[in-house]
Amino acid sequence: MARIDKLTVLGVGLIGGSLARALRRTNEVGEIVGYGRDAAKLSCGVELGVIDRGTCDLRDAVAGADVVVVAVTLGATERLLAALAPVVDPETIITDVGSVKQSVIADARRLLGAGFRRFVPGHPIAGTERSGVEASFAELYDRQRIILTPCADTDPLALEVVRAMWRQAGAAEVIDMDPAHHDEVLAATSHVPHVLAYALVDCLAAMEDRIEIFKYAAGGFADFTRIASSDPDMWHDVTMANRDAIFKVLTQYETTARAIATALAAGDSEGLKNLFRRAKDARDRFVDRRVRH
Amino acid sequence: MARIDKLTVLGVGLIGGSLARALRRTNEVGEIVGYGRDAAKLSCGVELGVIDRGTCDLRDAVAGADVVVVAVTLGATERLLAALAPVVDPETIITDVGSVKQSVIADARRLLGAGFRRFVPGHPIAGTERSGVEASFAELYDRQRIILTPCADTDPLALEVVRAMWRQAGAAEVIDMDPAHHDEVLAATSHVPHVLAYALVDCLAAMEDRIEIFKYAAGGFADFTRIASSDPDMWHDVTMANRDAIFKVLTQYETTARAIATALAAGDSEGLKNLFRRAKDARDRFVDRRVRH
Repeated sequence: MARIDKLTVLGVGLIGGSLARALRRTNEVGEIVGYGRDAAKLSCGVELGVIDRGTCDLRDAVAGADVVVVAVTLGATERLLAALAPVVDPETIITDVGSVKQSVIADARRLLGAGFRRFVPGHPIAGTERSGVEASFAELYDRQRIILTPCADTDPLALEVVRAMWRQAGAAEVIDMDPAHHDEVLAATSHVPHVLAYALVDCLAAMEDRIEIFKYAAGGFADFTRIASSDPDMWHDVTMANRDAIFKVLTQYETTARAIATALAAGDSEGLKNLFRRAKDARDRFVDRRVRH
Repeated sequence: MARIDKLTVLGVGLIGGSLARALRRTNEVGEIVGYGRDAAKLSCGVELGVIDRGTCDLRDAVAGADVVVVAVTLGATERLLAALAPVVDPETIITDVGSVKQSVIADARRLLGAGFRRFVPGHPIAGTERSGVEASFAELYDRQRIILTPCADTDPLALEVVRAMWRQAGAAEVIDMDPAHHDEVLAATSHVPHVLAYALVDCLAAMEDRIEIFKYAAGGFADFTRIASSDPDMWHDVTMANRDAIFKVLTQYETTARAIATALAAGDSEGLKNLFRRAKDARDRFVDRRVRH
């Protein structure tokens, strides 16, 4: 695989910054340039050793780049792709890290024109509830999975370069997946859990005025609601971009929750026990299957 | 405070075993006797140094005990209190660790008769998703909160002995609370989150047959569903014992979840953003307020 002489990261936050740090550990990448709208944050990225240099000039950032990684929030992606189209070299490979793929692909196809062939839609299945370049770390992708959702007209060579980049960044597996399938799976395992955690915390905060609740919450609650400390604007973007799939899973979830409420009201002891047992078995199987716990 | 010369733990699992281990670190407790129905598990407890000796004979276990801690699951508590009543010394203090207090108090009042005065209802706000004596550890209660829910006729001296015991076990605070209030607060922060986590995993497991979901779940999902790996039979007992309070919170939660689904369907971007932001603020405040993160 060809060495990446110049890598440009658009948006040097947790995801983009961690990718830069991860690749920095290898000798497979030359210069790493960061682009963003906030010069101070870019300076911080340089000081932390995440990027070699930062610039607020998009044309300068991407000039001569082998690979450009779009790592801004989903809500900012469309605008950035529009700005990128007229300044990016025709042979530069573009990839992204968005948590929703169909909406990004539609935007990229419309905005990049002929350059869409060199656009490789991607999504690393990794992250924390924190954000910003200070939160980035080189090990974020180690032993994790990366999903790529190439289209029929995606350049196979571009796909291979992006695949190799993620392997170098530490990923255990780089998997090709249909974009619609990706959006459905991620709605179930990531987007809906975030929505539910935000919903629970908001619901309890409304009760908190009346009774002190959070004071008596323990470790289980902290784990369960950790994702509700994630960046709300970022998750708003994800939720809006994948609303159909999320709505579908949310509706199925409501049916299960309602069944439990009904079983509770009816005192259906056996029904509850069976559901809890089934869920524990499924969760334990999931844990067994994970690459990293 | 008088030293506890003999402490009996009924049910040497995660909660009872960790209490024994925690008190073992101090010099304030003499003999620690474990009682259970499974002799092999008790032997394991002795070998691990959790208890001094184990017995399947309840009369032998509690004879001459200063304090008896009922640390079996909620579903087994009523039966155990009934067996305990005729064999326990009248001056022995009894306490429990159940996650629901009104139901245990009703059982204890009915079954212990005059001995109810020496029964101190308690609930340590600590635990993990694991269970069994092998999972117990001495630091479980360090810097955590313990709630006691004494009644008007609870012996103040018995209350003080149990309070002192928990402080010796490492607790940061031992708080008195009204039993109904306890059950409402715990429904919100512990019981409903467990129900929701079981519901989500069960809902996704049903989709799993059609599409591989769990394979693509990341750390956020693991955190969110960790409590769904908790002992389902134990949580069934808790849920049944506190069904009214849980049903109430669950219904409020469903209203919030429905509002989100409606906002999604309507494309109400601002509404979603505001709710997510409000929830993140509340969750961050909760984390700030915790004794231990």
